[in-house]
Amino acid sequence: METKGRILTGHRPTGPRHIGHLVGTLENWVRLQDSFECYFLIADLHVLTTDFEHPERIGGNVIEVLADWLAVGIDPQRARIVLQSAIPGHAELSLLLGMLVTVARLTRVPAYKEQAQALHIRPSLGLLSYPVLQSADILLYMADTVPVGEDQLPHLELSRELARRFNQLYAPTFPEPQGLLSTTPRLIGTDNRTMHTSYGNTIALRDTPEETTLKVMNMYTDPTRIHANDPGHVEGNPVFEYHDAFNPNKEEVEEYKLRYRNGKIGDVELKRRLAHVINEYLMPIRQRRAEIIARPSDLMDILQAGTQAARPVAQATMETVKTKIGLNPAIQVS
Amino acid sequence: METKGRILTGHRPTGPRHIGHLVGTLENWVRLQDSFECYFLIADLHVLTTDFEHPERIGGNVIEVLADWLAVGIDPQRARIVLQSAIPGHAELSLLLGMLVTVARLTRVPAYKEQAQALHIRPSLGLLSYPVLQSADILLYMADTVPVGEDQLPHLELSRELARRFNQLYAPTFPEPQGLLSTTPRLIGTDNRTMHTSYGNTIALRDTPEETTLKVMNMYTDPTRIHANDPGHVEGNPVFEYHDAFNPNKEEVEEYKLRYRNGKIGDVELKRRLAHVINEYLMPIRQRRAEIIARPSDLMDILQAGTQAARPVAQATMETVKTKIGLNPAIQVS
Repeated sequence: METKGRILTGHRPTGPRHIGHLVGTLENWVRLQDSFECYFLIADLHVLTTDFEHPERIGGNVIEVLADWLAVGIDPQRARIVLQSAIPGHAELSLLLGMLVTVARLTRVPAYKEQAQALHIRPSLGLLSYPVLQSADILLYMADTVPVGEDQLPHLELSRELARRFNQLYAPTFPEPQGLLSTTPRLIGTDNRTMHTSYGNTIALRDTPEETTLKVMNMYTDPTRIHANDPGHVEGNPVFEYHDAFNPNKEEVEEYKLRYRNGKIGDVELKRRLAHVINEYLMPIRQRRAEIIARPSDLMDILQAGTQAARPVAQATMETVKTKIGLNPAIQVS
Repeated sequence: METKGRILTGHRPTGPRHIGHLVGTLENWVRLQDSFECYFLIADLHVLTTDFEHPERIGGNVIEVLADWLAVGIDPQRARIVLQSAIPGHAELSLLLGMLVTVARLTRVPAYKEQAQALHIRPSLGLLSYPVLQSADILLYMADTVPVGEDQLPHLELSRELARRFNQLYAPTFPEPQGLLSTTPRLIGTDNRTMHTSYGNTIALRDTPEETTLKVMNMYTDPTRIHANDPGHVEGNPVFEYHDAFNPNKEEVEEYKLRYRNGKIGDVELKRRLAHVINEYLMPIRQRRAEIIARPSDLMDILQAGTQAARPVAQATMETVKTKIGLNPAIQVS
């Protein structure tokens, strides 16, 4: 009998999901539900490492993320949608794993110094501990598979090290989680920079068709092209990247590319068509999202049910871990 | 109406308590039970920062420490004796407080580099986080008072900083814990070094009278004194320090000092008398200890009851903290 692997992945609730999340991550997650037991974590504790000064935002963003996930096809009947802060095992396991890793090792994690520099602050203990908490997220549910982008491989490597270290020190306990590399390239922002909500260069799943059209009409395109009959560049041009991602008519896209290279089509026409295909692509998602967000108490019920279902799994791991580390002799507190 | 202050203090279960703990700390705790609401923490998580490789030791040491505490007069009817690892709020609050403190601040804690050097290892994340977990221990129970030795003041200062920082960022929540400085000087080891179980220079409360006598007869004394009729030094001589601490007959002690300075009494006579007074001092403690340790299931019941009583206090704090930080919107998982 074949046993399904178990996946742990998630998002920080930093705001509504956008088309970059959709084609880069969420569509993949939806497919993975068929072949894996999936735990999707709403990682609200991780938000605090970069933003602990806006407590009023987090709750709303949890709802936004959850609505987006359900709208794209995350299925709470099959996957477990878990609120990180509602399960104390994340913090407990993170603390215990922190005994097994040196400060020096953590300061070598590439994202650490990058983040600290990007935020223009002296790094917090929370930022240094980030990949340890992330490892705890994975190991708490004994996940063996983690979908990752290439830039996330160093974090996964720490999870694997910590699993090995624990298994060697005490007894075989954790699977060494394997990375499942996404084959989908990362979508560029509408301004040709990395797509990031804080840059204002995204199209959110919850945007209206009108907002979407406006964003598309203002998109970055080939800056060397002054007139519609100048030959244009297709490569590195987000308008064509988006056509590739969202236009289901591949022949049309090839024809556009040819005409663009030959100076036979203007950006306005290309963008109008792009806005249309993106809005078509997003329409069913937006319809489901509108229905879902109209019933916030159902959303909370789904989050509660997923978290509740995950809790015994987390508790079982923590009991095993504490016993092996020598903690908690015979004390059960109900 | 007068409100009692609330104390949080505790010990790491590293082994049986000794006479240094007794006169330096435990006798003070016993008195404090009259005027404070006391939480005494068996800090098993803190053991792991320096020793995570001996899981088989911790459970036994928890029992030893608990038996010692009860034998000296810690009263589970009045104080709450709490097992740290059995209450997830310690790890959860520590993680959250870690967002509010920089790595640079923690590397300046004096004990951090000292410990790292003493252990001959590259410091772990657990060691760096130690004072944050200690702050969480205190703040989790909203303790306003912490009995400290002078060397522990830097750790308490961090707790005060974190309480202030949280209160400023979110809303007044935590009292700023005050240090209650112990007036009892620290007892020196039997070999004239700092007293420490790992140095083998202690007398454990559980030692037999015979073991105690042997240790006293081998004590360090004035090394400049060759013969019993040489004039001797009383100051910096642990034999006299112990007479001061344990001999109830203060006139006798003064007479000994005079004779010693004049070369009129030998070390052997002084030590025999010292062994006797220490054994007299410890006799009631040892009797109670023998009764207590004979009923390990009662010990576990006491630890369970104290931990159980502390849990709602910890939970209330965590609910308040999470709400103020913006976590956990309406998700209750039972």
